[in-house]
Amino acid sequence: MHIRRADIADCEAILALIRDLAEYERELAAVEATIETLTATLFCDHPTAFCDLVEVDGDVVGMAIWFLNYSTWQAKYGIYLEDLYVRPSHRGQGWGHALLKHLAKICVENGYGRFQWSVLDWNQPAIDFYRQIGANPLKEWVGYRLTGEALRALAND
Amino acid sequence: MHIRRADIADCEAILALIRDLAEYERELAAVEATIETLTATLFCDHPTAFCDLVEVDGDVVGMAIWFLNYSTWQAKYGIYLEDLYVRPSHRGQGWGHALLKHLAKICVENGYGRFQWSVLDWNQPAIDFYRQIGANPLKEWVGYRLTGEALRALAND
Repeated sequence: MHIRRADIADCEAILALIRDLAEYERELAAVEATIETLTATLFCDHPTAFCDLVEVDGDVVGMAIWFLNYSTWQAKYGIYLEDLYVRPSHRGQGWGHALLKHLAKICVENGYGRFQWSVLDWNQPAIDFYRQIGANPLKEWVGYRLTGEALRALAND
Repeated sequence: MHIRRADIADCEAILALIRDLAEYERELAAVEATIETLTATLFCDHPTAFCDLVEVDGDVVGMAIWFLNYSTWQAKYGIYLEDLYVRPSHRGQGWGHALLKHLAKICVENGYGRFQWSVLDWNQPAIDFYRQIGANPLKEWVGYRLTGEALRALAND
């Protein structure tokens, strides 16, 4: 078994993977995460975000970072996959699929209603793969995000 | 103060609001939630989904159902607003805005990095309102969802 839940000692490896992923997406400057903040958020008393890792020959080469979402219609929890990453050196060996399968199993075992994630609309290889495993696009829905000054302004208006 | 955190005695009122919202969206048949399942999920030992209510003259007339999301780049939690609903009888009085402001305050007070939700792409009045408060659309991102038989198939493949 090469997929395991991350523990507190993995924060350095997790940060390295986050930075790799951000570099791949040309967003390295946007990474504020540190070993300290990863530790404080993923390994606090009752974390609601989790990290599962792929370990091959003692090296951490992939990860899934996810949290629990909630369906109001179903009154059930589910999984939202925030980030999935496999090092380029270990691509094409099924690790991405194995991580998705691992999370699908967690859903089924816990009676969760749905497994969800987002993809960039130009990432056709990923989209093809998601369609192939039976996932449906939520085409009509657009996400909105409030951060920084606009978030503080609404809080204080 | 008309906005308060729901407690276990509110599940009947929450279910009535969920059914109202579903009827409005012509999805009443999709509502599987019951008082029992709402109680078991929103009021378990360490819930990660929460409900805030608008109460006017002793009547529950609006709600926000939300959970914590997670930003990998920031290594910070945030809020994802799953459903926002105000009874037609109490619209146009600012309760929707008050619920959003309430959640923005929770973000700021807890140092959360972002406040997020989704909107149907044809719901122009909502979109105009979200733009007005400074929220940005995540236009390039498409959600994918795996449920039911496809979810079980991936878990067992």
